[in-house]
Amino acid sequence: MSAWSIIFSEFLGTAVLLLFGCGVVATVLLPRTNSDGDTASWVLITFGWGLGVFAGASIADASGGNINPAVTIGAALSGATPWSQVPWYLIGQFAGAFVGAVLAWLAYKLQFDANEDNSGTLNIFSTNPPIKRYGWNMVTEIIATFALVLFLLVAPYGDSPAIYAAAAAVVVGIGQVLGGPTGYAINPARDLGPRIAYAILPIRGKGSPDWGYSWVPVVGPLIGAALAALVAAGAPVAAP
Amino acid sequence: MSAWSIIFSEFLGTAVLLLFGCGVVATVLLPRTNSDGDTASWVLITFGWGLGVFAGASIADASGGNINPAVTIGAALSGATPWSQVPWYLIGQFAGAFVGAVLAWLAYKLQFDANEDNSGTLNIFSTNPPIKRYGWNMVTEIIATFALVLFLLVAPYGDSPAIYAAAAAVVVGIGQVLGGPTGYAINPARDLGPRIAYAILPIRGKGSPDWGYSWVPVVGPLIGAALAALVAAGAPVAAP
Amino acid sequence: MSAWSIIFSEFLGTAVLLLFGCGVVATVLLPRTNSDGDTASWVLITFGWGLGVFAGASIADASGGNINPAVTIGAALSGATPWSQVPWYLIGQFAGAFVGAVLAWLAYKLQFDANEDNSGTLNIFSTNPPIKRYGWNMVTEIIATFALVLFLLVAPYGDSPAIYAAAAAVVVGIGQVLGGPTGYAINPARDLGPRIAYAILPIRGKGSPDWGYSWVPVVGPLIGAALAALVAAGAPVAAP
Amino acid sequence: MSAWSIIFSEFLGTAVLLLFGCGVVATVLLPRTNSDGDTASWVLITFGWGLGVFAGASIADASGGNINPAVTIGAALSGATPWSQVPWYLIGQFAGAFVGAVLAWLAYKLQFDANEDNSGTLNIFSTNPPIKRYGWNMVTEIIATFALVLFLLVAPYGDSPAIYAAAAAVVVGIGQVLGGPTGYAINPARDLGPRIAYAILPIRGKGSPDWGYSWVPVVGPLIGAALAALVAAGAPVAAP
Repeated sequence: MSAWSIIFSEFLGTAVLLLFGCGVVATVLLPRTNSDGDTASWVLITFGWGLGVFAGASIADASGGNINPAVTIGAALSGATPWSQVPWYLIGQFAGAFVGAVLAWLAYKLQFDANEDNSGTLNIFSTNPPIKRYGWNMVTEIIATFALVLFLLVAPYGDSPAIYAAAAAVVVGIGQVLGGPTGYAINPARDLGPRIAYAILPIRGKGSPDWGYSWVPVVGPLIGAALAALVAAGAPVAAP
Repeated sequence: MSAWSIIFSEFLGTAVLLLFGCGVVATVLLPRTNSDGDTASWVLITFGWGLGVFAGASIADASGGNINPAVTIGAALSGATPWSQVPWYLIGQFAGAFVGAVLAWLAYKLQFDANEDNSGTLNIFSTNPPIKRYGWNMVTEIIATFALVLFLLVAPYGDSPAIYAAAAAVVVGIGQVLGGPTGYAINPARDLGPRIAYAILPIRGKGSPDWGYSWVPVVGPLIGAALAALVAAGAPVAAP
Repeated sequence: MSAWSIIFSEFLGTAVLLLFGCGVVATVLLPRTNSDGDTASWVLITFGWGLGVFAGASIADASGGNINPAVTIGAALSGATPWSQVPWYLIGQFAGAFVGAVLAWLAYKLQFDANEDNSGTLNIFSTNPPIKRYGWNMVTEIIATFALVLFLLVAPYGDSPAIYAAAAAVVVGIGQVLGGPTGYAINPARDLGPRIAYAILPIRGKGSPDWGYSWVPVVGPLIGAALAALVAAGAPVAAP
Repeated sequence: MSAWSIIFSEFLGTAVLLLFGCGVVATVLLPRTNSDGDTASWVLITFGWGLGVFAGASIADASGGNINPAVTIGAALSGATPWSQVPWYLIGQFAGAFVGAVLAWLAYKLQFDANEDNSGTLNIFSTNPPIKRYGWNMVTEIIATFALVLFLLVAPYGDSPAIYAAAAAVVVGIGQVLGGPTGYAINPARDLGPRIAYAILPIRGKGSPDWGYSWVPVVGPLIGAALAALVAAGAPVAAP
């Protein structure tokens, strides 16, 4: 597969992922939307992100639907993806994440403008732990990404489009069960791309992009993916 | 496939879509229903609409389960559907949308009658943005429909009934993540058919059908579909 | 297939359906359960019932997973099930529905005992419209059952186990979108079996089983199924 | 399959199950998480546990994805699993359940530390009925596990990975409809492993592990599984 095809495919898929993910947090946090009054906010956010994984990974089917550098690194460590292709994956993923966040901002432009206090809107774009301690936050990100990548490497859906629905279901689950402490980045592109977008976009009264925390949701998921690749290498597989 | 078969198939499917979609907003907005007290209103509305897509598109399987003029136009632009058949699709879709809305009204007749103030009941039938600015509302509709049609044209479910479940999941997602600003028409028939029904039906104390806004949820989705067809034409596809 | 196999299969499946369905309303309405404090009551009820359809219909796979007299009558009218087998289906379904409701009562025995006022507990067993007008209630039941049976007869899942998941999804949807006015019996056995159980079970301070309404959720679904069989007979089907 | 492969496979799968299950109750019960303010607590808990079943059982695919001693005993009683392998299953399951609970505690370490009153945190690890009466609690566990194991033995998904999604859906359902009275252990390892972890872990101000109740969620599910194997042996199966 050509470098350009990988970049384009991962770009489209990751853009749709972030359009969904930033969009659902926007509808929960911003005023004057149709979701006003709904108190199942975490149900909405975790389903919105998970369905973004389903849509985005399916759209990126030509390149295997990675849309996540941690998944790409895990696949490379497992020998499923050649290391020579990894750069094209990452370029498409980070660029797509940036553009998807911008599209979500455009879709909610009126609500950003109508919001009296935009100082907390970083949460729409990037993860931001309610209790911030880099070490423990990283532990949570490592565990959550470990579960995701272990599933992708070991579960028996790898050769069919069912993998995208399966991955989406697991991401809904990881969000619901492990997203509480850090907001479950579990994907370096998902966090860094929109953080850059937040730093650039003209949002009146916006808060800081918090660069101090920005490395945790990049490094943590990569460590989790590496650990998962290690465990998966030794895990038993079903006889064909 | 005969013109009559296309019309009948799309009519049935789109009628079921609108029966579901208008029904779920009715149960949320009207008094004295079994859903009273549930505060997960947006979860209900987005799942109700999405399951309407699943039921309606499956019922319209004979004609490919379009039940949406934006999908039909996207398929025609991509060469998957002959332009000569497009009129039959649209006739079935708009007529079905009208009839489905009427059926939903019949199912909730007692609740409409028991409602003290029906002035806000347009929201049961058609989209009605919390912040109304035609330009930005159209941006949101374009982005949301772009995501839907791009998924349908690129994702690898096209040749099996799994496409209807996949499309339903994506529509649940689009509702949750992009429905906040405008109510996610993403389907000209879904919006215009019920709007006409609302203008005609004898609902005591009903509000205006707001014809001034009615062109936005028709034009926006068509633009989004055209853009998606354009991008999909250049997107990489998986090797067979 | 032998009469006994049909009866046993439908009995098991319908019992599990009612165990799920009565159970989920019990957890919402009765005090001192783990679901206390959850305000997404209608989401819970509609998913609980839908997952009961999935479990019950799958368990009754040997007999086609009908677990609903309206489905059996619709299949007989369409020629898919011989009329000579219909009595065995109905016996299994009504007996199973009764036993499933009793099992749900056993599972929630402590909560029924702890409930200070059991006068509203008919709602755990059978449907009970918030606004009771037999004619309009029947209209709602006819429309809802029409949608279900039309889906089963026309949608392209009939030959695989996927039909049970598809039917479950549609029943979740019908509950969410059309269950508001009457509580969506859409199944004569689901309503009458538990109503008889409610009349018999020793629940302290229980209310009336409301025999006056009991014929509506029996007759309405049968009419809806007959109309669906009529429409399905003329509906276009996909070329093989 | 080697003893070691069974142990490793079931260990990984059950660890992921408990990571999910303990994690989702932690996010609901502990302060300062991203799920704060969501009032659909039971929806979250039941989906989180169900998606844990999907992830864990899929990861344990090499050994059939049991991740539950009741399922293993039911399969052995039905002749599907040799009794000689049962010990390896149980070792992997109980050890995995313990480790999964510890991982969930690590992921929520900051929240446990920030929680002013940890006396109720047993609920994060093990089941704890709102009304405690051993006899009736056991009835509920027997009925709930009976439904699960009957489904697994009779439903037509046994030979494909679809069984994991099907089982997960049924466990979501069982939680929603029968989890109210006891918290639905339906799995001896799921309850006892984390209870031991709770007794050991250094959680400031934690409550009692309640050993007095601990045998109910072990014995009840095993009885339910045995009853299901008995009924399944006589149940009709679809002709191939």
